[in-house]
Amino acid sequence: MTLTGKLLIGQQSISGHRDAIRAINPATNAPLEPAYAGGDEQHVEQACALAWAAFDAYRETPLADRATLLETIATHIEALGDELVERACAETGLPRARIEGERGRTCGQLRAFARTVRLGEWLDVRVDTAQPQRLPLPRADLRQRHIALGPVAVFGASNFPLAFSVAGGDTASALAAGCPVIVKAHNAHPGTSELVGRAIARAVKHCGLPEGVFSLLYGAGNEVGIALVSDPRIKAVGFTGSRSGGIALCQAAQARPEPIPVYAEMSSINPVYLFPAALETRCEALAEGFVASLTQGAGQFCTNPGLVIALQGAALDHFIQSASERLSRCPSQTMLTPGIFSAYETGVKALAQHANIAAKGMPATGPNLGQAHLFVTQAEAFLNNEQLQAEVFGAASLVVACRDVEHMRQVSEHLEGQLTATLQMDDSDLPQARALLPVLERKAGRLLVNGWPTGVEVCDAMVHGGPFPATSDARSTSVGTAAILRFLRPVCYQDFPDALLPAALQHDNPLRLRRLLDGQREA
Amino acid sequence: MTLTGKLLIGQQSISGHRDAIRAINPATNAPLEPAYAGGDEQHVEQACALAWAAFDAYRETPLADRATLLETIATHIEALGDELVERACAETGLPRARIEGERGRTCGQLRAFARTVRLGEWLDVRVDTAQPQRLPLPRADLRQRHIALGPVAVFGASNFPLAFSVAGGDTASALAAGCPVIVKAHNAHPGTSELVGRAIARAVKHCGLPEGVFSLLYGAGNEVGIALVSDPRIKAVGFTGSRSGGIALCQAAQARPEPIPVYAEMSSINPVYLFPAALETRCEALAEGFVASLTQGAGQFCTNPGLVIALQGAALDHFIQSASERLSRCPSQTMLTPGIFSAYETGVKALAQHANIAAKGMPATGPNLGQAHLFVTQAEAFLNNEQLQAEVFGAASLVVACRDVEHMRQVSEHLEGQLTATLQMDDSDLPQARALLPVLERKAGRLLVNGWPTGVEVCDAMVHGGPFPATSDARSTSVGTAAILRFLRPVCYQDFPDALLPAALQHDNPLRLRRLLDGQREA
Repeated sequence: MTLTGKLLIGQQSISGHRDAIRAINPATNAPLEPAYAGGDEQHVEQACALAWAAFDAYRETPLADRATLLETIATHIEALGDELVERACAETGLPRARIEGERGRTCGQLRAFARTVRLGEWLDVRVDTAQPQRLPLPRADLRQRHIALGPVAVFGASNFPLAFSVAGGDTASALAAGCPVIVKAHNAHPGTSELVGRAIARAVKHCGLPEGVFSLLYGAGNEVGIALVSDPRIKAVGFTGSRSGGIALCQAAQARPEPIPVYAEMSSINPVYLFPAALETRCEALAEGFVASLTQGAGQFCTNPGLVIALQGAALDHFIQSASERLSRCPSQTMLTPGIFSAYETGVKALAQHANIAAKGMPATGPNLGQAHLFVTQAEAFLNNEQLQAEVFGAASLVVACRDVEHMRQVSEHLEGQLTATLQMDDSDLPQARALLPVLERKAGRLLVNGWPTGVEVCDAMVHGGPFPATSDARSTSVGTAAILRFLRPVCYQDFPDALLPAALQHDNPLRLRRLLDGQREA
Repeated sequence: MTLTGKLLIGQQSISGHRDAIRAINPATNAPLEPAYAGGDEQHVEQACALAWAAFDAYRETPLADRATLLETIATHIEALGDELVERACAETGLPRARIEGERGRTCGQLRAFARTVRLGEWLDVRVDTAQPQRLPLPRADLRQRHIALGPVAVFGASNFPLAFSVAGGDTASALAAGCPVIVKAHNAHPGTSELVGRAIARAVKHCGLPEGVFSLLYGAGNEVGIALVSDPRIKAVGFTGSRSGGIALCQAAQARPEPIPVYAEMSSINPVYLFPAALETRCEALAEGFVASLTQGAGQFCTNPGLVIALQGAALDHFIQSASERLSRCPSQTMLTPGIFSAYETGVKALAQHANIAAKGMPATGPNLGQAHLFVTQAEAFLNNEQLQAEVFGAASLVVACRDVEHMRQVSEHLEGQLTATLQMDDSDLPQARALLPVLERKAGRLLVNGWPTGVEVCDAMVHGGPFPATSDARSTSVGTAAILRFLRPVCYQDFPDALLPAALQHDNPLRLRRLLDGQREA
């Protein structure tokens, strides 16, 4: 397939007029063809009009049909074959195995949402049957289901060119919920975006669905993004990216005449607690696991362990020493974009002004090579300097040495909201871990014992979310099947004749859903 | 019990220092003792400190204990006996039977949430068990439950001095979710608020729970409210009231360093559609039902039918004539407060500038007597004048005559978000109703056939919510047991030893919850 460099509005390829985006191979800084001229407000208008026209029909597609769309998208992405893998590698500097793995995850995610759609639990069907004889007043027949919010604007992430981009978790969960999707492609991987976007459009066509179910826009500046979030036909936003970007979208969404929800996954430093017994008995293993998690993928994960919290003393010194030795043997790695590399360099310099450098990865020459960094500071300094908990996106982490357990607790209470918090603990650490758990539950969306936060499973129980600024809405997850719940709202039908009820609510329960019927869950 | 005129911060009665609130009997305009001197930022600080101190313990109370608290509150409210009924009648001008009914609803609501808490479905427990042999990577053991968001600020409503005030739906659902509650009492019924607030405090004490689980504050201006919503320990807001009040709270919540969700139930005119066959065959019955719903409780309901949409013609003329005759025989009724009465008068005058008056209720002299009004306009006028869809809180309604079905659809698409939409239809109206249904699903939280929107059942299937400006968050309901979901967020526990897991997630499922286990719902 030849890349066209065009916007994709429904089934139409349309040339943009605005400043062009051009992908850069971060390993060489060489620009990649073609150029993607940006869209303007008129293109946003067209895409929103199509999405709005598709919405009522798409949200009422039978569950099986919607599941089939998700599965067909997966099949079409797989059918792109090597072209997709090669383009994604070239645009991101990520190794082939990583991109192949991410493709598997992306398609698996689409299929997981297909299963979730078919299961239908997200409809949350509740039926309270009429009680015409009730005194003092009869009760009406009341039936609730969830329906799609409306067309959703999705902003792809830089660090997951497949799994959190054009056909990523936000798109998959919004389509699963019955929402048409308009993606604003991330500027770092426009070619990957086009390949995947066209695969989606082909799947939409193959399934006989209205073309407005999916569009893909490009734009160099803020014009397209702000126009999208401001359009009255857009009813929710999914975003993965920087704190400043997420906050700007939240503000635009709140400034609308009709404010809308924004699900922005933004900033997290993912504290790792090394409890005393664990640190004492398996210091080397902890150092090994930590450095592997920190440096994986050049540290470019939302769940990268950017903070280590432990009691000061010989065991922690040993850990720092061991981690430092391992880190100093890590080769520098190509980061995703020149911009991300430069922000990493700036972030590392800022940290170095306030904390001590324990170790650096191997130096290297060449474009966009991120050198891992390990910093050390004391709890007092951490508590007195907000800059020490600013996310540095990349393989940089800060060890905070605490005088005592109370200090550890203070540091924990001082943390902003997080995606994850990790407890490295042995049995005898249980009392300390238990005492800290309530704080961590308040701070993070996912808590781990004796693992590492990188690696986010796509499953029913996953929570990839957490209090601000980890996300803009802690009531949800952006990974896992529960992500579908973000794009739904309840509607109640009172005394409807069966002929007018949606299938999910009809009296003889044709979809065989487990309804909450008069206060009892059906078997 | 003697009313003290004091704030209630945990178990302590504390005198305010700021300007005093004094209830007014709207039937006589006579002030009622005692005066309630307002709280200040220091009182907010105290209440938030107590709520925060109580939070971790309260949110982990066993489900049975939390249910018992809700039931004990109900018992203590009932034990207030006539004193509560008389004070509420005096403060609101509402008749005794209405207040007694509302007390029943309030206590029933508390008990419904107790059942919901015990059932535990709101925990949404999901378990994905470990797959250590999985290739290419093993799967960890992942378990999700929902936990309480944190202390919640509740702003009581004027029009439900019991059911949507101090111990109303917001308080009941937040306490059910495990959130401590701080109520800012509505200025219209401070004595009723004190009686109920002290009943809650006694129940908290009786159940041996930390005092910070509940506080009750008073304040004449915005100081207490804004301080509450701005306090970093407050994690969500429940509000029922005006559009401007709700929007102000949303803005304050968004301006925080950590924005928080606001559930504001604000403004709705609740369109009623009279379809041709229904209008033809039961015009008189429709007029009777409509006028009864419109004038009930002086029209002071969020779900009051403020808009009637129908095709122009003889049948609609007949309906307007019949409704007008009935309305003109309706006595004026005491409204809740001089402020609400005055706003109603202003709203009616504004409507009269843009629509024709079809009928007025019986004139009367005396304070705060709201006279019902029926207006008529054409669809063109409605489409061209936003003022015609501004809520007038009270017994005023506007009939919009449409030239044809397409016009009816245009009017519907032009509507802002609503709490309800009602279809009056016969069998032969089914095709028209079906064609309009997608629009109404997008516009409203509850759709009714052949009923009237006033009267909101507290049950599992109820949705008292809807798109902006009906509420600030269409993803939720403020009435019914699903309201508990507003105050929760998911947390995932990865590879936790059983000893550290909350009971809801432990391996042998001691709470006997129906978990989503490896993708299948347990029986």
